Amino acid sequence: MKKPLILVTNDDGITAPGLRTLIGLMKSIGDVVVVAPDSPQSGMGHAITIDNTLYSKKVVIDHKNGAPTEYSCSGTPADCVKLGLREILDRRPDLVVSGINHGSNSSINVIYSGTMSAAIEAGIEGIPAIGFSLCDYSWQANFEGAAEAIKTITTEALKHGIPFGTVLNVNIPKTDGKPPKGIKVCRQAKANWREKFDKRLSPTGKEYYWLTGEFELLDEGEDTDIHALENGFTSVVPTQFDLTAHKTISHLNTWNFNGNQN
Amino acid sequence: MKKPLILVTNDDGITAPGLRTLIGLMKSIGDVVVVAPDSPQSGMGHAITIDNTLYSKKVVIDHKNGAPTEYSCSGTPADCVKLGLREILDRRPDLVVSGINHGSNSSINVIYSGTMSAAIEAGIEGIPAIGFSLCDYSWQANFEGAAEAIKTITTEALKHGIPFGTVLNVNIPKTDGKPPKGIKVCRQAKANWREKFDKRLSPTGKEYYWLTGEFELLDEGEDTDIHALENGFTSVVPTQFDLTAHKTISHLNTWNFNGNQN
Repeated sequence: MKKPLILVTNDDGITAPGLRTLIGLMKSIGDVVVVAPDSPQSGMGHAITIDNTLYSKKVVIDHKNGAPTEYSCSGTPADCVKLGLREILDRRPDLVVSGINHGSNSSINVIYSGTMSAAIEAGIEGIPAIGFSLCDYSWQANFEGAAEAIKTITTEALKHGIPFGTVLNVNIPKTDGKPPKGIKVCRQAKANWREKFDKRLSPTGKEYYWLTGEFELLDEGEDTDIHALENGFTSVVPTQFDLTAHKTISHLNTWNFNGNQN
Repeated sequence: MKKPLILVTNDDGITAPGLRTLIGLMKSIGDVVVVAPDSPQSGMGHAITIDNTLYSKKVVIDHKNGAPTEYSCSGTPADCVKLGLREILDRRPDLVVSGINHGSNSSINVIYSGTMSAAIEAGIEGIPAIGFSLCDYSWQANFEGAAEAIKTITTEALKHGIPFGTVLNVNIPKTDGKPPKGIKVCRQAKANWREKFDKRLSPTGKEYYWLTGEFELLDEGEDTDIHALENGFTSVVPTQFDLTAHKTISHLNTWNFNGNQN
């Protein structure tokens, strides 16, 4: 049987331990090609490079454990997927995986996530795609516990396909190397960030800010990704890129948009 | 009656004619404060500035037609909204508007849109928010025809409120100054971009790319934003930031995630 072709990318950059781990796991499942950013792109959301030039080159990051074909790219995660699909791969991949992100992309974080933007970019093209994140921001995070869940979810996705219009947002709890308790299919928890701007003065007296903040959960549901993660489970949220709030359409049709009296 | 407080931002930058037009329109409805990027941020998606410093300063762009309070910010549209809400405004605004974008944010473009990311950022905070875009990329675009639709939609949104979890994505057809035929509530059309990478050589012999592409409509529905725009109507799509594909959850629960046989 022909091995599946898997395009691997991330948003922490091509040298990130999370990406190197994901390459190793995907090599046990299929043929792997890597196209990943040459520098960290966290918080880039679904940015693309439209007013600037893009550089890309074939690289060898890790002679022993790398993929046979790896490209670094000066762009965002979404750029990497576009470039991989249109310029680098000679056939359509069977799967696009992104990660393993150093840090959670659960709940509202999905909106800001470069990891998930790469998966969504592939999903728009109709290619099955999964974003993997470990809830540990450290560069030295222990990815061992994540291996089994990632292999299971990837294998099931290749077997069943992923329904069109959907990609998977997978978050794995921090377990310091132990496997999580299991895998739960969830919805995105309602939450936001209570930002604080840390105002400082530069050596030349110019005011500047650092964006900091605290995550604020606004959801007590037991079917959310946050609930699963807090209880030691890996969360899988089917994530869509049709942003239409379909249920709100009929409400908006009661508004007085065209000079009728309501 | 107290006038509503309206925060105005965009992704084309604080000097963009579309923003200057929107400020004028909002001044006829409420008290206006502007926090907008100091340079163009198109295609930034929902990027935020987390690994870099943010600069912001009070500016006067236009003595005659500007707002009494305007700040430029070195960050993305989402940063501008965060900074406006947390640092600049002394009370919660009644509405956040973003635009008028020079170019369409209909259909799948919503995913890449800095204009809409600003509106979504406000929506996450529970503040009514609208992104306005004119389907004309030119810096010299004629915004006159857009005025009536923008005032109507803004007034209706202030009157009714916008359901929690939803923001409005408004696109206005290019009409060369004439008002569109009317306003239609729509869903986001299915589409993607067929990218082409224009490969070039730098003066020093280094390969680089420009991202170009063609919009490909994959949707024949008559209830879409693209259909409304092509027929001369302004489109209003209620847009959500819960990305959960709720209908897919039961399907994923049939997968063999936890060692059961399916």
